[in-house]
Amino acid sequence: MSSPRPGVDAAGRLRLAAMEQGALVDLYELTMAQSYLRQGLTGEASFAYFVRAPVPHRRVLVFAGLDPLLDALEKFAFGEDDLAYLEGLELFDRPFLTQLERLRFTGEVWAAEEGEIVFPGEPLVLVTAPRIEAQLVETVLLNLLNYATLVATKAARIVLAAGAEAVLVDFSPRRDHGTEAALHAARASYLAGFHATSNVLAGKRYGIPVAGTMAHSYVMSFPDELSAFRAFAHDHPQPILLVDTYDPLQGIRHAVRVAAELREAGRELFGVRLDSGDLAALSQAVRRILDEAGFPSVRIFVSGDLDEERIREFRARGGVAWGYGVGTRLGVSWDLPALGGVYKLVEDAHGPRMKTSPGKVSLPGRCQVWRREGFRDLVTVADEIGDGRPLLRVVMEGGRRVAPPPDLAQRRAAVRESLFSLPPALADLAPVEDPRYPVELSPRLVSLAAGRR
Amino acid sequence: MSSPRPGVDAAGRLRLAAMEQGALVDLYELTMAQSYLRQGLTGEASFAYFVRAPVPHRRVLVFAGLDPLLDALEKFAFGEDDLAYLEGLELFDRPFLTQLERLRFTGEVWAAEEGEIVFPGEPLVLVTAPRIEAQLVETVLLNLLNYATLVATKAARIVLAAGAEAVLVDFSPRRDHGTEAALHAARASYLAGFHATSNVLAGKRYGIPVAGTMAHSYVMSFPDELSAFRAFAHDHPQPILLVDTYDPLQGIRHAVRVAAELREAGRELFGVRLDSGDLAALSQAVRRILDEAGFPSVRIFVSGDLDEERIREFRARGGVAWGYGVGTRLGVSWDLPALGGVYKLVEDAHGPRMKTSPGKVSLPGRCQVWRREGFRDLVTVADEIGDGRPLLRVVMEGGRRVAPPPDLAQRRAAVRESLFSLPPALADLAPVEDPRYPVELSPRLVSLAAGRR
Repeated sequence: MSSPRPGVDAAGRLRLAAMEQGALVDLYELTMAQSYLRQGLTGEASFAYFVRAPVPHRRVLVFAGLDPLLDALEKFAFGEDDLAYLEGLELFDRPFLTQLERLRFTGEVWAAEEGEIVFPGEPLVLVTAPRIEAQLVETVLLNLLNYATLVATKAARIVLAAGAEAVLVDFSPRRDHGTEAALHAARASYLAGFHATSNVLAGKRYGIPVAGTMAHSYVMSFPDELSAFRAFAHDHPQPILLVDTYDPLQGIRHAVRVAAELREAGRELFGVRLDSGDLAALSQAVRRILDEAGFPSVRIFVSGDLDEERIREFRARGGVAWGYGVGTRLGVSWDLPALGGVYKLVEDAHGPRMKTSPGKVSLPGRCQVWRREGFRDLVTVADEIGDGRPLLRVVMEGGRRVAPPPDLAQRRAAVRESLFSLPPALADLAPVEDPRYPVELSPRLVSLAAGRR
Repeated sequence: MSSPRPGVDAAGRLRLAAMEQGALVDLYELTMAQSYLRQGLTGEASFAYFVRAPVPHRRVLVFAGLDPLLDALEKFAFGEDDLAYLEGLELFDRPFLTQLERLRFTGEVWAAEEGEIVFPGEPLVLVTAPRIEAQLVETVLLNLLNYATLVATKAARIVLAAGAEAVLVDFSPRRDHGTEAALHAARASYLAGFHATSNVLAGKRYGIPVAGTMAHSYVMSFPDELSAFRAFAHDHPQPILLVDTYDPLQGIRHAVRVAAELREAGRELFGVRLDSGDLAALSQAVRRILDEAGFPSVRIFVSGDLDEERIREFRARGGVAWGYGVGTRLGVSWDLPALGGVYKLVEDAHGPRMKTSPGKVSLPGRCQVWRREGFRDLVTVADEIGDGRPLLRVVMEGGRRVAPPPDLAQRRAAVRESLFSLPPALADLAPVEDPRYPVELSPRLVSLAAGRR
């Protein structure tokens, strides 16, 4: 099973630029693929991506990560240095390495649209390709879809908790799992209804609005808080002053003073930010102070280990906020840090296939999902006609996208509309270990599955 | 606060190759930096990275991510397209953009060694640089150190739970938060004592041994399980057969038959893998069947949502395993998916600085950490002489590493040695909300902090 420690440079340095030179792949995908080649199992096979039900605390999922995946599939290839490395492992023969050198993904992909509200248990992506290709893309497919869907789903919960009026900003980069995760988190949270991200790289790459306030270290870089506020207000067109570096009630008084000075100069303070302490109580006190001082339009922006539960509690306790910065608990999906998305063989030359090991049953064959009124889904065999709108459509043929990447801003608007029109039972955010999903199987699919047991 | 939606391509495509073209940075680092420039706050400042205490369920941390960070610091720069994007935000003036164009990290860094056992509350990295540089690297520093230390710490717990004899393989790529996270997870878990990873890209990049078995989809690609086992055993030099695609006890009988066939051909079956069901009971049954059939050296490899608690329980219930594949719960640090590592201004021209907001106090000034017998640490002011071994040493001067990257295999051996020599109170894996850490502050540091309150 284990391979000799290869004689390559063991420097241990992270070279991000090199990432595209190799495909993310688990070793066993390669050893299995070599065996498929030797055994002549090179015909077409279909695999389905779905999330195992139930997912604790998730009554709906927001599907995301498709476009990054299609991009990875279009680029899927093993470079010269990958092949040299694999040869050094002494696990692979020349015919297989030659095959790998030529290998590109040439398959067909059906998938739900990014931002679609979906449920565990239903197929979200179907891959049909020569078996070796379909097998080798498993790792990268699961990696990209699982994380993006996880974060989009978490973001959607936060959008629901904050309500349609609140501004939400992704503050997660410093706690996300690496710099690429920060990019995925910004994209997926924007797709799911957030307004902006603090992540400048994501802003540039995806055209997402960027936003930010100021840090405690800025305040501490000046002899006192008031000078820091004055300097920042002078230098920033829409200043939001962080008032809790020392004492938040003293801080808000300093902010009021700066707001008055700005007004004399013909400008308005944009807002203040609270980042610690009893945020609900503090926000009420701050609102009162600002209103009484004649600054009812100065916004209150709240941050500090927020998530959907804390925002719900903040609002229930009368907290007042124009917007929220949500970081750590968004980017790592704090209450559920991984999604049980799997990729299973569902059909090959032997016909529909299914796995039957305890607790890990999969649906057989290529399926379609039909979205009916009120988010009640019907899963059918692919060639059946259900009622409602089919969720899976072809997105890749012959290894090439059939349509341009989605317009994120447009998709975001559609997601927000869907979220705020969810039936109450699905919009409910209360924790639940074993949610039930409105997913029905067609009689034909049921009898196909029964026949395979 | 929020910027206009910039007129850049909103394609939303993930281009990994482009990642090095821009530094990961939160917007506010840039707006603050511009203000520092305007205000003439360009002198040196020191920031400390530490993890806020307490960290639930973590009696020790394994520090990791330093070398990836030093690499990022050496490359820290804004490219042409970054600058064009920033200009389009209409937040930055020409003098600042010109400064950014020239900006490289030129500072000094002191840090603990990767793999060092450390505690929350003590400084692990000290950065001293012109204030703008020190401020701008905050986001990437926190991102890289927090995740690597999080996973190394989780991996160390799994190493302790599995015991010194067990083989541990990182199976996390499909559930890690992106492809870069999978690379970090492989590196950090190997550093913390794992034996191998399934991640071929990580194997190539870091010289980590790679390992793998077979998937359910392989078994399902053949007319029946026995043919699948025969094909795999024929095609793999060290086959581990996955026996639970259909019925594990039937599967083990098929594996025994293949083991006998291999022996006739002068080979030995390497092992079998269990991935579902009651793993402890199943492993005992499988061990008995293998032993009785004359295959006492066939290894049992166990996987399936494992972590340190489940491995402890597996062993406590008499489970028998040569090795464990640990995926999801390792790579996302399931019970604690983010680390509260922060980066705080500790010193500038005004002298030592500290933040005093409720629950978020930081230590003032540049400090040193002294490791005494039995992992009892003393934190002193940097120029004090403590007793024991100083943990922080200079790793970067003038923005350049002062030593080559660590030898991961060597560091890994040292980490395993440290882990298995921890005092019982620190090696204890039982959950605890508020662990106490053996970290003492020197009288001089205490009085410095008191003077700053």
